[in-house]
Amino acid sequence: MLESEKLRLSARSGELNQPTAGLAYGFVQANLVILPASQAMDFLLFCQRNPKPCPLLGVSSPGERHIPGLGLNLDIATDVPRYRIWHNGEMTLETTDISEYWRDDLVSFALGCSFSFEEALLEQGLEIRHIRQGCNVPMYRTNVPTQAAGPFHGKLVVTMRPFMSADAIRAIQVTSRFPFVHGAPVHIGDPTQIGIDDLSKPDYGDPVQVNDGEIPVFWACGVTPQSVLMASRPAFCMTHAPGYMLITDRRNAELATF
Amino acid sequence: MLESEKLRLSARSGELNQPTAGLAYGFVQANLVILPASQAMDFLLFCQRNPKPCPLLGVSSPGERHIPGLGLNLDIATDVPRYRIWHNGEMTLETTDISEYWRDDLVSFALGCSFSFEEALLEQGLEIRHIRQGCNVPMYRTNVPTQAAGPFHGKLVVTMRPFMSADAIRAIQVTSRFPFVHGAPVHIGDPTQIGIDDLSKPDYGDPVQVNDGEIPVFWACGVTPQSVLMASRPAFCMTHAPGYMLITDRRNAELATF
Repeated sequence: MLESEKLRLSARSGELNQPTAGLAYGFVQANLVILPASQAMDFLLFCQRNPKPCPLLGVSSPGERHIPGLGLNLDIATDVPRYRIWHNGEMTLETTDISEYWRDDLVSFALGCSFSFEEALLEQGLEIRHIRQGCNVPMYRTNVPTQAAGPFHGKLVVTMRPFMSADAIRAIQVTSRFPFVHGAPVHIGDPTQIGIDDLSKPDYGDPVQVNDGEIPVFWACGVTPQSVLMASRPAFCMTHAPGYMLITDRRNAELATF
Repeated sequence: MLESEKLRLSARSGELNQPTAGLAYGFVQANLVILPASQAMDFLLFCQRNPKPCPLLGVSSPGERHIPGLGLNLDIATDVPRYRIWHNGEMTLETTDISEYWRDDLVSFALGCSFSFEEALLEQGLEIRHIRQGCNVPMYRTNVPTQAAGPFHGKLVVTMRPFMSADAIRAIQVTSRFPFVHGAPVHIGDPTQIGIDDLSKPDYGDPVQVNDGEIPVFWACGVTPQSVLMASRPAFCMTHAPGYMLITDRRNAELATF
């Protein structure tokens, strides 16, 4: 049995109840958004129009608790270690199993996550600051608009990783190979150019040290769709809890275009 | 005014009424599929699940005759030089303007086309056989299934370009840079492995000469979605006429991931 499937079964039984960073080396982990079919078309359009923050790895058919291509033994309602349930843009419950909230009109979206390209950066010997510091990646709301679709609109959220010049260049090269999991950075250098006033005060996650001579490098972030969803206040919505991702049977290496 | 916009205006006025291959060098040309909103979600899912044959460049909101990001001065109902109208999987009309058939529930899909990567291959000095022979690219139905979505299912259609070994390798490298317009080939070598019995008898387009020592190289083809649509016999559907593409303001070079 694949390590990824083992971990899903462990989440299904309730045994695995921790953030998934660092688990199932080599396997793709995904952000999860679950919406009623009536809003699924607009959200799908939103993802199609904003592929950098919303890289779609798979979409279920309405009511199905399975997403084609992500794993044969995969139950969307039980296999994520922790879920969040939202009503009108407010989180109303955090839970480890959403079976009892399942409806036959729900559509599930799996979106790529930066764990995939971070693994490729680490394999190059690059230091990723928040991993070195043992904290969450810093995330910032920018002033960069996304392309709206139906009710869904909002600003781009980015992650930041600082590098010395040569490593920043290598990081651009390496992540360019992964257009289906955020791809190349969206910005390098001066944070104020994208509406970030203070790097030491991220909107989500933790601040990291930026050393003299380092260039901050910004990637589109998978928190963008959640931020956009919450701002548009859908009547009902379910997601994974931040850091508690869906572990799929796809390989990170397989997402590289070459 | 951009060359691409000039050509759209010329199609709009009825002046331009010819295949668009070779026009507007450097600009992205697109396949067009127009469906009622009731089937749009399933078709969007089909494209998401089959990105190699169905690389989505843009999708309209229902009823809108504009596709975000493809050109400011762009009218989907008039700017393609020739359209086809389909009822229950049968073509019922070929026309240069679909304004009178427009409905406020129609969703338009622009899909990438191999012209984009052929330009990149020619810039490498590679010979593309069907261009050299002045004919259409040979296209074949394969036995490779696509991933179904709702009523949409069927076999992959591929294009074939023969190359000597070194050029085949270079062609794989170059087209890998374009994951959003079909990307890397899906097969090289023995055609029977993907269900093609006779290269001299393509299902669409024209046969081309394959010289001794050349390797046939197969790419996923934008005819796949049309083939799948026709097989699923939607009550109503409109498309471009083969070869008469939508010329957009996007640049082919901009589609390269690096």
